[in-house]
Amino acid sequence: MNRKTMMEKVSAEMPAKRWVHTLGVMETAVILAERFGADSDKADQAAILHDVAKYWPTARMETIIREQGMPEELLQFDKELWHAPVGAFVAERDYGITDIEVLDAVRFHTSGRERMTLLDKIVCLADYMEPGRDFPGVHKIRELAEHSVEKALIAGFDSTISYLLAQGKRIFPLTVAARNDLILQLREAEL
Amino acid sequence: MNRKTMMEKVSAEMPAKRWVHTLGVMETAVILAERFGADSDKADQAAILHDVAKYWPTARMETIIREQGMPEELLQFDKELWHAPVGAFVAERDYGITDIEVLDAVRFHTSGRERMTLLDKIVCLADYMEPGRDFPGVHKIRELAEHSVEKALIAGFDSTISYLLAQGKRIFPLTVAARNDLILQLREAEL
Repeated sequence: MNRKTMMEKVSAEMPAKRWVHTLGVMETAVILAERFGADSDKADQAAILHDVAKYWPTARMETIIREQGMPEELLQFDKELWHAPVGAFVAERDYGITDIEVLDAVRFHTSGRERMTLLDKIVCLADYMEPGRDFPGVHKIRELAEHSVEKALIAGFDSTISYLLAQGKRIFPLTVAARNDLILQLREAEL
Repeated sequence: MNRKTMMEKVSAEMPAKRWVHTLGVMETAVILAERFGADSDKADQAAILHDVAKYWPTARMETIIREQGMPEELLQFDKELWHAPVGAFVAERDYGITDIEVLDAVRFHTSGRERMTLLDKIVCLADYMEPGRDFPGVHKIRELAEHSVEKALIAGFDSTISYLLAQGKRIFPLTVAARNDLILQLREAEL
C-alpha cells in the first residue's frame, strides 16, 4: 500500500482532531529520527499507523487481544493501553506492514517496554511532544528532546506516572520497567 | 527471647536516633493493629525488628541476599530496599522468630508486595507515619489512616514514587505492584 492510500485509510478510522494529532506525531517523529539517527521512513510509517485502532470499540479490541494471545494483563489495565498492541496487529493484517521495527514501535508507543529500540523511543516520544500536545511538563520534554531522546522520554513517562498517582489510578508495570531501563541506559552511557 | 531482651539486642544494632524511630513504629503499629483488627502483639514484634539490619554493612547484606537465594533483582535496586528481606532472615536466625506473618511484615515493610496481609500493611504504614516522620504528604497519610489502612498506604507509596520521579531514580517494581493491588482491593471493597 502506498503512503497516500495508507494515510487516507488510517484517517478514516478516527475523528479529524485525532488525525491532526497523527500529522503532528508524523512530523515530530521524522524530525527526531533525523536528529538521533533513526530511519525516518520507518518513523513516518509507524507514526501514521500508531493510533489506527484508537477509536475502535472496546469489545473489538478485547476480541483481538484474546484471539491473538496478547498478554492478558492488558485487559486488567486501562483501556487506553489496548489500542497500541491492537494497532500493531491491524498494521500487519490490514496495511501489510511486515517490518518488525515499525510494528514494535506501534505496539509499544503507549506503554514503552524494556530495551526499547531507537524507533520505539522516537515514536513514543513524538506522541508525547507533537505540537498539538499541551500538558504540565510538555515544554520540559521538548527542551530535553533537543539533546537526549532518553531524558525526554523519561520525562514523558514521569508525566504519565505523576498523572496516574494524582488520579489514584494503577500504573502499568511495563511503563515502570521502560523508565527504569532508560535510567540504566543513561547511567551506562555516562560511565 | 523475651521482649525486653529483644529490644535491647535490636537497639544495639542501630544509632539512638533510629531506635527512637523504631519506638515510634512500635507505638503506631500497635495503635493501627487495634484500630483495624490485627494482632497487636505481632504488630509490636514486627515493628521492633523491622529495621534490625538497617545499619548493616552493604557487603554483609549482599552476602545474605546471595546465600539465601533472595531475588537477585534486589541487588540491582537501591540499597535502601535490602535491609527488609535481610531483616526477616536475621529475625528468624538470631531472634528465633518463626511466625511467618511477623517475618513477612518485616520482609515487605519497605517494598510492599501484592496481596499484602493486614499485618504487612500496618507495619509498612506505621513506618511511613510514626510520629517522628516529617515529609511532604505525611499529614495526609495520618489523616487517611484514621479510617483506611489501604488508602493511607497508597498515599505512602505515592510519596515514595513521587520522590523517586523527582530524583530521577528507578522505581522498584514490587512497590508498583503493591500499590496497584491496593487500588484493586479498594475498588472491590466498594462494589
